[in-house]
Amino acid sequence: MTKPLNIGMIGYGFMGRAHSNAYCKVNHFFDLKYRPVLKAVCARNAENAKAFADQWGYESIETDWRKLVERKDIDVIDICTPNNTHAEIALAAAAYKKMILCEKPLAMNGPEGLKMVQAIEKAGVANMVWYNYRRVPAVTLAKNLIDEGKLGRVFHYRAKFLQDWTIKADLPQGGQGLWRIDVAAAGSGVSGDLLAHCIDTALWLNGPIESLSATTETFVKERKHNLTGKVEKVGIDDACMFMCRFANGSLATFESTRYARGHKALNTFEINGENASLSWDLHDLHRLGVYDYKEGEGKLRGWKSVHVTDNSPEHPYMDKWWVPGLQIGYEHSFVHQVADFLTGLASGKPAMPDFRDAYRTQVVLDAIMESAKDGTWKKVAAV
Amino acid sequence: MTKPLNIGMIGYGFMGRAHSNAYCKVNHFFDLKYRPVLKAVCARNAENAKAFADQWGYESIETDWRKLVERKDIDVIDICTPNNTHAEIALAAAAYKKMILCEKPLAMNGPEGLKMVQAIEKAGVANMVWYNYRRVPAVTLAKNLIDEGKLGRVFHYRAKFLQDWTIKADLPQGGQGLWRIDVAAAGSGVSGDLLAHCIDTALWLNGPIESLSATTETFVKERKHNLTGKVEKVGIDDACMFMCRFANGSLATFESTRYARGHKALNTFEINGENASLSWDLHDLHRLGVYDYKEGEGKLRGWKSVHVTDNSPEHPYMDKWWVPGLQIGYEHSFVHQVADFLTGLASGKPAMPDFRDAYRTQVVLDAIMESAKDGTWKKVAAV
Amino acid sequence: MTKPLNIGMIGYGFMGRAHSNAYCKVNHFFDLKYRPVLKAVCARNAENAKAFADQWGYESIETDWRKLVERKDIDVIDICTPNNTHAEIALAAAAYKKMILCEKPLAMNGPEGLKMVQAIEKAGVANMVWYNYRRVPAVTLAKNLIDEGKLGRVFHYRAKFLQDWTIKADLPQGGQGLWRIDVAAAGSGVSGDLLAHCIDTALWLNGPIESLSATTETFVKERKHNLTGKVEKVGIDDACMFMCRFANGSLATFESTRYARGHKALNTFEINGENASLSWDLHDLHRLGVYDYKEGEGKLRGWKSVHVTDNSPEHPYMDKWWVPGLQIGYEHSFVHQVADFLTGLASGKPAMPDFRDAYRTQVVLDAIMESAKDGTWKKVAAV
Amino acid sequence: MTKPLNIGMIGYGFMGRAHSNAYCKVNHFFDLKYRPVLKAVCARNAENAKAFADQWGYESIETDWRKLVERKDIDVIDICTPNNTHAEIALAAAAYKKMILCEKPLAMNGPEGLKMVQAIEKAGVANMVWYNYRRVPAVTLAKNLIDEGKLGRVFHYRAKFLQDWTIKADLPQGGQGLWRIDVAAAGSGVSGDLLAHCIDTALWLNGPIESLSATTETFVKERKHNLTGKVEKVGIDDACMFMCRFANGSLATFESTRYARGHKALNTFEINGENASLSWDLHDLHRLGVYDYKEGEGKLRGWKSVHVTDNSPEHPYMDKWWVPGLQIGYEHSFVHQVADFLTGLASGKPAMPDFRDAYRTQVVLDAIMESAKDGTWKKVAAV
Repeated sequence: MTKPLNIGMIGYGFMGRAHSNAYCKVNHFFDLKYRPVLKAVCARNAENAKAFADQWGYESIETDWRKLVERKDIDVIDICTPNNTHAEIALAAAAYKKMILCEKPLAMNGPEGLKMVQAIEKAGVANMVWYNYRRVPAVTLAKNLIDEGKLGRVFHYRAKFLQDWTIKADLPQGGQGLWRIDVAAAGSGVSGDLLAHCIDTALWLNGPIESLSATTETFVKERKHNLTGKVEKVGIDDACMFMCRFANGSLATFESTRYARGHKALNTFEINGENASLSWDLHDLHRLGVYDYKEGEGKLRGWKSVHVTDNSPEHPYMDKWWVPGLQIGYEHSFVHQVADFLTGLASGKPAMPDFRDAYRTQVVLDAIMESAKDGTWKKVAAV
Repeated sequence: MTKPLNIGMIGYGFMGRAHSNAYCKVNHFFDLKYRPVLKAVCARNAENAKAFADQWGYESIETDWRKLVERKDIDVIDICTPNNTHAEIALAAAAYKKMILCEKPLAMNGPEGLKMVQAIEKAGVANMVWYNYRRVPAVTLAKNLIDEGKLGRVFHYRAKFLQDWTIKADLPQGGQGLWRIDVAAAGSGVSGDLLAHCIDTALWLNGPIESLSATTETFVKERKHNLTGKVEKVGIDDACMFMCRFANGSLATFESTRYARGHKALNTFEINGENASLSWDLHDLHRLGVYDYKEGEGKLRGWKSVHVTDNSPEHPYMDKWWVPGLQIGYEHSFVHQVADFLTGLASGKPAMPDFRDAYRTQVVLDAIMESAKDGTWKKVAAV
Repeated sequence: MTKPLNIGMIGYGFMGRAHSNAYCKVNHFFDLKYRPVLKAVCARNAENAKAFADQWGYESIETDWRKLVERKDIDVIDICTPNNTHAEIALAAAAYKKMILCEKPLAMNGPEGLKMVQAIEKAGVANMVWYNYRRVPAVTLAKNLIDEGKLGRVFHYRAKFLQDWTIKADLPQGGQGLWRIDVAAAGSGVSGDLLAHCIDTALWLNGPIESLSATTETFVKERKHNLTGKVEKVGIDDACMFMCRFANGSLATFESTRYARGHKALNTFEINGENASLSWDLHDLHRLGVYDYKEGEGKLRGWKSVHVTDNSPEHPYMDKWWVPGLQIGYEHSFVHQVADFLTGLASGKPAMPDFRDAYRTQVVLDAIMESAKDGTWKKVAAV
Repeated sequence: MTKPLNIGMIGYGFMGRAHSNAYCKVNHFFDLKYRPVLKAVCARNAENAKAFADQWGYESIETDWRKLVERKDIDVIDICTPNNTHAEIALAAAAYKKMILCEKPLAMNGPEGLKMVQAIEKAGVANMVWYNYRRVPAVTLAKNLIDEGKLGRVFHYRAKFLQDWTIKADLPQGGQGLWRIDVAAAGSGVSGDLLAHCIDTALWLNGPIESLSATTETFVKERKHNLTGKVEKVGIDDACMFMCRFANGSLATFESTRYARGHKALNTFEINGENASLSWDLHDLHRLGVYDYKEGEGKLRGWKSVHVTDNSPEHPYMDKWWVPGLQIGYEHSFVHQVADFLTGLASGKPAMPDFRDAYRTQVVLDAIMESAKDGTWKKVAAV
């Protein structure tokens, strides 16, 4: 029999839906020792909370997250609120020894993240940060190939996360759905929102970054603020790019923007090794690009598009889904992350990234911001 | 408040899972008047039924489908069993005035299908056949564009459904997971399993087929039968292809096989009109290929790859899911079909294809089989 | 030292340019024993002939092809005129023991082609038909792979040649540039113009066709004729498609049309074998699609896009051109064909397809036309 | 009648072939007032010069470039020698008032380039640098679209030139075919060889670069030198990347390397404007990627792949070649450049890039090298 794990979710937006969907689906497809129970959802507005609870089957609602954190019947606090609230909630939840699943980026900056790491490690409870793209099967397969030594010495890494949804100069900032372009709520722009994903994936696939040089830009300087009603200076970075050197000697470029016309969510990476190269693109997330120099006997070398949909254990997670050729989507990365979290809970080998692991991305983000200020290369502290 | 609709499902294989998942998810994403309730699942083997019920949350089990059909607390019978059982179950369910959702192909052949149509129409209950690919957003968008007159006069249509999973000559036939290559259970091979999908989509997009010429082949002539344990003649078609003429004057080729090395589930169509062409491929189901002759002022004409993932009403169904650029998968076509069925139930405008509409595909399949026998062109009866 | 080979070309249109370019380039890139010399070009209109001769460096002109054929200083007659003139010219040239390079299709039909074969074989001179696509490096590589046994048993072949340039209903027929839609000059429409290429490639790659069933269509029934000035019935096939069975047991579909909106010259083939599949597309002619079931250890199988541009002997012809990654174009297939012809002349192993080999395509075309008339399957004679 | 223009070429390697081919072909396809005559080729080794002259039809040879430069019968000196010889030859040729066509990069560095500019401008003769990629039709089309204002405000530019041919650690440096990895002959590694192309294209398409930050790497530190026979320190950059800001406010990343496994000659750019984006890739040079936000009425937006092969004036240069759908190759960019040079000569509007224009790329390269030394941003002087 599965053991119930009571979820208390704070926030009910895009991520609230993605997580709830994952909790509902995970036991239908994975054989697990635990079963998430949608115990309570928390939102400041009771009506919104109620509507969300009805839609998703949460048993109860709260309008004050502190109450939720204190509830005895809650095992796990899931933080889906804007970035500027993560730390306060996490510190409180840790104090009540709740397990915590926190949306990314972990914190507003490194020092804040470090406090969260210390609190959760002191509490000694399971914790995880929702860097979901690690669990896209094609990305996990890339990780497996790298761990097997398929690539040999790595020379290059490049990553991008390009969008185009804020090109409109009259788009306001702030409030529901638009807090991501309000610096007070988001802490940063594309760096924390988009690049953070690329950095997490890169650290996971290619190891630590040693040093970097970054630059940022804000193309639209002022926008009306939804909460204050006034035209205010835009504090976020609209675009952020950096060059870096990894500890393994490879060189990299990273770029993210919300001003790349034509790209909805072009989250990509490519890694070039001595013996093989790999590439991936969120727009066709079920495919992995593979170039294997050792294959093809000289005359048949080329980039292979692997449709990572075989229902075999060799295509990570895919034996749980449909039949070969039938793709899964974005949401499944969250289902996989819940499955791995629950498996980790049962086995005692925690699923990654936990707070400490996600903190490493914060340290890189801090170095990016510092470098963007003075235009020099910055060392990235090993943590 | 949503009104419960009690589902009684017969069968628990690949399709049983796909349908159950759809029932579980549909109300989380769509605002509907009805809510499917997983009332009972039926399998001959009680243990299997129990395991499936536990996994998916069915409230009860049956081991005799006749009992399920008679149960007063069941509103809808969902038929997910091998093709040779559809008719008998449907006739019985219709007699009890149950709504019926039947897996495709509707029947073993046209005459059997016609009996089912007559029974369900006499019963006067809601009914639908699971030709799920109509509800892939890119395919629905194609239909909308055609209905808007975007293509003008149509000259050509071509469709393929290519797989490669039966190339292995020592693959047995019959029984769980392999009934699709047992002619007694499946009635036919790729024609009923794969081409039926292509035909349904084609009739929907391009109207009736007037005449056709077909050929079939069985590459592996004998296989061990799982149920009898003996090596037996293979009765299904391993490959089937036909040329045809549509009522609108367009010409077409159709092909399906399970011997096209390299293709897992390459279900594609392309339609060429005077003013525009459209193409689609299940392997990247979230994309629609569009060539619009009227766009590009002469120098910028080309095939456009539309990533059908905008959360706007113009990208069918996608306003219910995530944000632009984030793809959904195979399973979502079933969610959409349930959503449309429930919407149709509430509005009185039934979702298609119902039994009668799906019967049209049977009539084409019958013509294919006849033509494959004598190699001549066959008229397809208008029904 | 290279030995001069005096070319007498009849016709100066699209093919006249393609061949002349090949003659001019071939010795710059290939080390050969022979060197084509542009001796004379023949056109009915002296002014046109003169202009062409000036542009390309032909030493002299003729306005009567019979004179050219008789000239002692001409070694090779290159026939680039409309299809309805091939036989007469070839028979005359053979009588004068000229080598003949004839544009495809060889003849208006099989019997006419047979006469040409007999005449040229009686003359005992070198001869070739310009089925240039065999010499696209990616296509030649496909042939090499098949000959090495890479594919194993072949199950399927499919080929298309799709264009869209005659959709315009007010396009006239006949005369310079438009003789291809005039049945008197062309003999047929897309079947002889486009499908002939597909058939030649298919016979070369996959062996003889045993039987077929075809259909044709003329979408625009009447067009103004440029030579008569009158609106006349269109006699060509605008579209032609057929299903067939090869001697090796594989099944195939072929399709060609000039009404596939969005396709300029989509000449493609795909061949599916037990162990590997290959695909090619003229629109990106420097790439070969390869799926090798034996590569990738189960988890990394996929379609590979081989950029056939390595300057190594393993990428056919490419060691003569630039450096890896730099593509060649359409015209190079003609250069390669001339190179092979000249090599064959020196070695005594004639380059293919010669008249006899090209006659095989005529026999298939005849079967297509017969089948299109009565809608039944036709045996294709082995010749 | 065309007027002869006598070419004296120095060097006979890869570029010697590419240019010679262009001279031979250009008048066959373009109607021009001038006609290049292959007057003389110069190489230190007489045998090599003779062999090349025979292959290509040069009328005479020289073994001392100073003699060639002095010859009265030479109108144009074409410099195809290693980078470290460009300046000396160009200064001498300018002194003799020869027109000069110089291979790229113009010079070893900015100051050297400036001297060449001053010399040629003082001589007042026609001059050009072989940045051939501007003349790929798809690239020229991109330029035309940008000049028409199709993109609106530009936000981003990104360019790469990736190869993988020097990964092999035992590849020697220096001498014929390998001077590009010998710093004495090449001056730099990928920056001057590959990035120079990207920079030239970028300046042409997107205007001046204001400031940049760069880094370089040499992965293989020592290689045997072919000329000295000793293992020597490698002085070139194996990889070079930089971030920059253009005068128009857009941000950019540039990267080049010879260690990106799987890429033969992946020369790409993408430019993102407010209203449209464009992308191009040398591996499929006949295609332009176009995303036009104003097309598609909201529901049909997407990236279009324009096959730039229409024989119409709207597809630059393509009306001179074949028919729609038939691609040209790498070599044609040189043919176009010669055609434009000759047209410029006749019209008095010189074809670009001339020495002065190419000097701008040198200035950017100098800034790259300076920045790579100290890791800070450098202003790029406007010249």
